[in-house]
Amino acid sequence: MSAGLLSADALEAAIRAVGAGRYHDKHPFHQLLHGGKLNKGQVQAWALNRYCYQSAVPRKDAALLSRVEDRALRREWILRILDHDGTETEQGGIDRWLALTDGLGLDRAMVVSMRSALPATRFAVEAYVRFVREQPLVEAVASSLTELFAPKIHRERISGMLEHYDFIDDTVMAYFKRRLDQAPRDADFALAFVRRHATTPELQQGAIDAVRFKCSVLWTMLDALHHAYVAPGNVPPGAFTPEPSDGE
Amino acid sequence: MSAGLLSADALEAAIRAVGAGRYHDKHPFHQLLHGGKLNKGQVQAWALNRYCYQSAVPRKDAALLSRVEDRALRREWILRILDHDGTETEQGGIDRWLALTDGLGLDRAMVVSMRSALPATRFAVEAYVRFVREQPLVEAVASSLTELFAPKIHRERISGMLEHYDFIDDTVMAYFKRRLDQAPRDADFALAFVRRHATTPELQQGAIDAVRFKCSVLWTMLDALHHAYVAPGNVPPGAFTPEPSDGE
Repeated sequence: MSAGLLSADALEAAIRAVGAGRYHDKHPFHQLLHGGKLNKGQVQAWALNRYCYQSAVPRKDAALLSRVEDRALRREWILRILDHDGTETEQGGIDRWLALTDGLGLDRAMVVSMRSALPATRFAVEAYVRFVREQPLVEAVASSLTELFAPKIHRERISGMLEHYDFIDDTVMAYFKRRLDQAPRDADFALAFVRRHATTPELQQGAIDAVRFKCSVLWTMLDALHHAYVAPGNVPPGAFTPEPSDGE
Repeated sequence: MSAGLLSADALEAAIRAVGAGRYHDKHPFHQLLHGGKLNKGQVQAWALNRYCYQSAVPRKDAALLSRVEDRALRREWILRILDHDGTETEQGGIDRWLALTDGLGLDRAMVVSMRSALPATRFAVEAYVRFVREQPLVEAVASSLTELFAPKIHRERISGMLEHYDFIDDTVMAYFKRRLDQAPRDADFALAFVRRHATTPELQQGAIDAVRFKCSVLWTMLDALHHAYVAPGNVPPGAFTPEPSDGE
């Protein structure tokens, strides 16, 4: 690890290298999900746990917003909250996620209550919210940069899930389709911010570590799902238990 | 779930019932640990991950202390921090835990850095710190009541680990021996506090849920260990990787 200041291009390359090694598209659970190897109960478990992440994202972004003194940055960042929470006249990402859980036959009140989610999911999600609330601003921004790697996984997910699961159709995949446009816009802005504001070796290392941290959040959520729902007999007390699978 | 006020005895019985169903002595990883079914690398992984919990406990107790206006309660609660952090003249629980990790042949700097711990462990531990910082005081106190169930697991651990592992001796088990005295004292105090101060059905339910939450913290830590170190091939990127086992 060099102690010197990296060029902005070298910093970006280091951040992209974190994704190449640690982004959750490498996780075996995702390979099972996209490859059609899960049954409906396992896909339900994934969707209702991932809801915890979706529902925390606006709080995460509001926590960042509450620390920002530059109005131009606030004006940009608030779009993320609007995108996710929606408005009076437009659906948001959380609505689209609930369309997915509805489509999977999950009770909406159960999903929204998060009572059947794995504790590990919620711990990981809240670690992310807390990171953004507490760490230096450039690191908080950098932790969003997993969005650089998201379009590839979303494309794989859309094609893989539509192809392999008869309980998945076009409408329930709306969340991922919308993110194909949103994620690059958000990631480009955040990447430019990090390139410009990580102006010391310490801040640059902090930004790289923030992306590593965020990859751990996403990876840990899949580890918990894999442990509870792929290997038999590991569902922790109180968590969602799938109905017995009818085929697949 | 009754909406009425429970007697103090009924509240205590409800709290004890949470432990009977959800305390981590029921977790398969503990059964492997105490039954001598783990190899040294797996015991090392347990010890260095559990260090994250140990090292967070004084912060958790200081967070509680920082919210308490009753000096009598502060005077009692600060003993936990002294017990755990130690003083100029007396070793603390963290010293005793490091004697265990030393005895297991782990590099102390690596253990203390927590860099090789599972992300899931640290998320669970920090969820506990945050709970105590943010929830109503009676719930924060109640979350410590897993200590009611600890002496049994400590006794099993002392006898099981000494009997089954040739790399464990009496000195490295000092942490658990000391907790046999400390935990009941602490638990009795906290239980009396909760019995006295959980004076509404809502606070009573909150206290019961706090014990349930804490059991989830402990359970999740073992789930993560079990997933990473019992099943093959699941160690997440960057986490401790045991040396190949020599026998066992």
